[in-house]
Amino acid sequence: MKFFNNDDTKIVALGGLGEVGKNMYVIMHNTEIIIIDAGVMFPEDELLGIDYVIPDYTFLKKNQEKIKALIITHGHEDHIGGIPFLLQSVNIPIIYAPKQAVPSIRKKLDERNIPFKGLVDYNEKTRIKTKFFEIGFFATTHSIPDSHGVIINTPNGTIVETGDFKFDLTPIGPVANLHKMAAVGKKGVRLLMSDSTNALSSGFSLSESKVDEALSDIISRETDRRIILATFASNIYRLKHIVETCRENGRKIALFGRSMESSIEVAIEGGYIKDKSIFITPEEAKKMAPNKVLLLCTGSQGEPLAALSRIANGSHKLIKLMPNDVVIFSSSPIPGNGLSVSRVINKLYLKGAKVYNNTNSTDVHASGHAKEEELKLMLRLINPEYFMPVHGEFRMLKRHADLAIELGMPKNKTFVLQNGEILSMSKTGIKKQGTVPANDIYVDGNRIGDIGNLVIKDRKIMSSDGILIIVANIDIDKKLLLTSPNIATRGFVLVNESSELIKKIENNASRIIQSQLKSNNFNINDLKYALVSGISSFIIEETGRNPIILPIIMKTKKTSNIEKAETK
Amino acid sequence: MKFFNNDDTKIVALGGLGEVGKNMYVIMHNTEIIIIDAGVMFPEDELLGIDYVIPDYTFLKKNQEKIKALIITHGHEDHIGGIPFLLQSVNIPIIYAPKQAVPSIRKKLDERNIPFKGLVDYNEKTRIKTKFFEIGFFATTHSIPDSHGVIINTPNGTIVETGDFKFDLTPIGPVANLHKMAAVGKKGVRLLMSDSTNALSSGFSLSESKVDEALSDIISRETDRRIILATFASNIYRLKHIVETCRENGRKIALFGRSMESSIEVAIEGGYIKDKSIFITPEEAKKMAPNKVLLLCTGSQGEPLAALSRIANGSHKLIKLMPNDVVIFSSSPIPGNGLSVSRVINKLYLKGAKVYNNTNSTDVHASGHAKEEELKLMLRLINPEYFMPVHGEFRMLKRHADLAIELGMPKNKTFVLQNGEILSMSKTGIKKQGTVPANDIYVDGNRIGDIGNLVIKDRKIMSSDGILIIVANIDIDKKLLLTSPNIATRGFVLVNESSELIKKIENNASRIIQSQLKSNNFNINDLKYALVSGISSFIIEETGRNPIILPIIMKTKKTSNIEKAETK
Repeated sequence: MKFFNNDDTKIVALGGLGEVGKNMYVIMHNTEIIIIDAGVMFPEDELLGIDYVIPDYTFLKKNQEKIKALIITHGHEDHIGGIPFLLQSVNIPIIYAPKQAVPSIRKKLDERNIPFKGLVDYNEKTRIKTKFFEIGFFATTHSIPDSHGVIINTPNGTIVETGDFKFDLTPIGPVANLHKMAAVGKKGVRLLMSDSTNALSSGFSLSESKVDEALSDIISRETDRRIILATFASNIYRLKHIVETCRENGRKIALFGRSMESSIEVAIEGGYIKDKSIFITPEEAKKMAPNKVLLLCTGSQGEPLAALSRIANGSHKLIKLMPNDVVIFSSSPIPGNGLSVSRVINKLYLKGAKVYNNTNSTDVHASGHAKEEELKLMLRLINPEYFMPVHGEFRMLKRHADLAIELGMPKNKTFVLQNGEILSMSKTGIKKQGTVPANDIYVDGNRIGDIGNLVIKDRKIMSSDGILIIVANIDIDKKLLLTSPNIATRGFVLVNESSELIKKIENNASRIIQSQLKSNNFNINDLKYALVSGISSFIIEETGRNPIILPIIMKTKKTSNIEKAETK
Repeated sequence: MKFFNNDDTKIVALGGLGEVGKNMYVIMHNTEIIIIDAGVMFPEDELLGIDYVIPDYTFLKKNQEKIKALIITHGHEDHIGGIPFLLQSVNIPIIYAPKQAVPSIRKKLDERNIPFKGLVDYNEKTRIKTKFFEIGFFATTHSIPDSHGVIINTPNGTIVETGDFKFDLTPIGPVANLHKMAAVGKKGVRLLMSDSTNALSSGFSLSESKVDEALSDIISRETDRRIILATFASNIYRLKHIVETCRENGRKIALFGRSMESSIEVAIEGGYIKDKSIFITPEEAKKMAPNKVLLLCTGSQGEPLAALSRIANGSHKLIKLMPNDVVIFSSSPIPGNGLSVSRVINKLYLKGAKVYNNTNSTDVHASGHAKEEELKLMLRLINPEYFMPVHGEFRMLKRHADLAIELGMPKNKTFVLQNGEILSMSKTGIKKQGTVPANDIYVDGNRIGDIGNLVIKDRKIMSSDGILIIVANIDIDKKLLLTSPNIATRGFVLVNESSELIKKIENNASRIIQSQLKSNNFNINDLKYALVSGISSFIIEETGRNPIILPIIMKTKKTSNIEKAETK
């Protein structure tokens, strides 16, 4: 990036702006790069078959020798999920992660057989020094234990990146380190990068201790019924509290869902949960009195394969829903999941269950992200000269910038940016300067990047209108169509009930091929083009649908061997 | 339905229960059937290419000679959208519709060239008599003018179906006929069927006059900027008010979107809008000072092809967004549209527009459906002996039934049903008795019912993992594979970047075919099965994906003509 002045510090998001997901913020000064977080994003539309979206690592690959460290703020997927993919593409010398995030990261690497030696844990007191940077941390409160904000001292001043946070003044775990935030702010911060997820929500977020009260209330009130409780597996403090409440109320707990099982393991290892004897197997739970068990499960987002959805469907192999069951959603639907959650709730109601969720009992869940008043508190504490809202869709970033302006920051010192847009920080100020590549990269199955927009486009068409394949044998020398073309379809029409239509398409294709064969400049490409356009128009006219038309022309000699077939 | 007692009155929903959409309620007594409403539902997932979902008309087809009339409560798609499909399947002698719904129905029939003569308008005073039924109406308030509740007197007592309603005590149009509802209730109602859409919302819904105030405020305050306003085209009263506010504020109006244009036409014909001179063409709007125009458009649900989305994308051929534009969403996202609306809002923010919507200015939209307190008011006014909540997902129906129980109705007199479940009403009471077919029927393009679950399943697989086609030429007599099999794919991988994978698949297919050809009991079906299972496992192993495998086997003779190809 030779257009930069080497004395400037550059800040660029490779992910996390304009989206809630795949957070990755890069701080570069001269020969050094520090990366904050390496997240994935779950694609909005599960149907297109993409498993993850990750940032474009091109800029990092090109500047590989500069990378000094990756710093992880906390163990959520949108902050750590990209690590295996990053390590497959880029050489990272060391990863600093909070102690509680280390097992999750280690597990990810093991699953993909990545033998990485440089994973190191840090705590709030850790200080990291490189030639140009000095890095420290402050503890925050979030919906997973051990979350941190990052303080990066650069030759051009201090940058603070908050990580994900809320201000919970009566949390279940440790309180956020307000004093350290205040001290950093007092010393002077050049640029604040702060979590914008809940910038559109007014007020101050609900304390986790209120959620615990609400859950205790329900569990101690519903003494006659079986309780099924679905929540986010990563919220260890909430799990810890549910376990304690069950003990007080004489209920055993059976776990459903792999991430729930492994979270409980982590919580036991981490000392959050002490009493292991409360856990029973699903088989044991089946045999006990319903009002003596609580089924703790994943699936609070209506994920079709999760335990809760299968229980609601009646397709769970062990647990059948009983009309007296109480189901608690200690969660709120992530944007985009509203419909699937509704579907599950409808099925539960249909089978007679009593449902508590965040629409009929608002205290059963609290968000882990700061709302308006908390965001203003962070801005006041850190008191930065410049502000770059991060971690949010544009409307959230925009609202967050407006909050800073309401607090007195000049508008031209706030930066609502897109992924890839570079901020350049010098002694005299901060300005936008240039861009780096920051496209979405798709991961499908176990392969990165072999899915391009073309493949996605094909999937979109096929998902809506299907595909129609025309196989034709022609003898090119004799310019003969050897048999009537063969039509195969998938996802287009029910073939058995559409034989007349298929016959018409066959005749049309036959006619088009015959007419092309008569042309003086006959060639395969023109034939394919004629088939695609002719059959498309005919099908749109007949059915109103527009499937992919895929002609496969077999060049055959009438009285000899068949040649290699060609496909488009 | 010979298992019925002919003296009983039967009530069954063919659509509308467990869903917000495709409302269709059937009342049958002895030799007579009255149908209330004939709606469509828009499929939740646009990706699968289904345009509409309609009720299963089988029961009506089988009892065609009994059908005396279809009664339409109001002109929304989920109440009238199924009429063309119904008329194509079933003989309906007469359709009664409110005057304002008639042009919309007529247009639908014209578009599909259905020459139906029996469309008759009714008003609140109309009474319809058949051998067993006497039918009357009461005016309600809803988000479209001319909505009605239906009173059906049967030999076993009176049934009231509310249609869609809210209680707006300061509406823009006429007030609902509270006195008629009270009078019907006083005389005695056996069964109430009431709109459950907003049963999960507490309180009393916002009056349309408050919405008008909020819109007036914004329009009269934003004197320096162009205003783009998106709302539901069918809300004629709101359109009327926007027109009046623009006149007062010296703004001309340009219309965008076909349904907006035709709604304004209907509003002018119906006398709701008097001053036609306020409307200008989009081309004229482009030439005027921005603060002298308001662009009134469709697309408040983030529909990708609607005017507003195209303006936000920058792909609208006439209108480019300006950084000073004000955009008002006088709407709230229908469940399932949240993400697409967010996407549009994010793009608008990114381009610097100022956005008013129901999250930052709650009074810019009011729902057309009764909330909890209004539902209780309806239950009190009609004071029915039995209650069947309709028009809603199960959690809404369930909540609505619970409201009735809170008001004192015995639980066993409330019926939370599924589509197709029959209520049988006799002199002594009402009970559940039997079912009729009530599946979802898909309409794709212009064809009804040629899309089955198999086609949808194929589309789902292809949308997520694509399709891989294997074409092989074999000489059956000589048991020879004539050339190496040919592989074509769509939506699976980027072919150019996966040549090695494709080559491996080709070799695998070749090996499978050779080995099958050696079998003593060789047959084409076994070969196809072996190809599908062998190649599937290989691909899952290599890529983690599971595309459709479609083998096309061409039976060819080595030295003679090619025979007709076969496809699976």
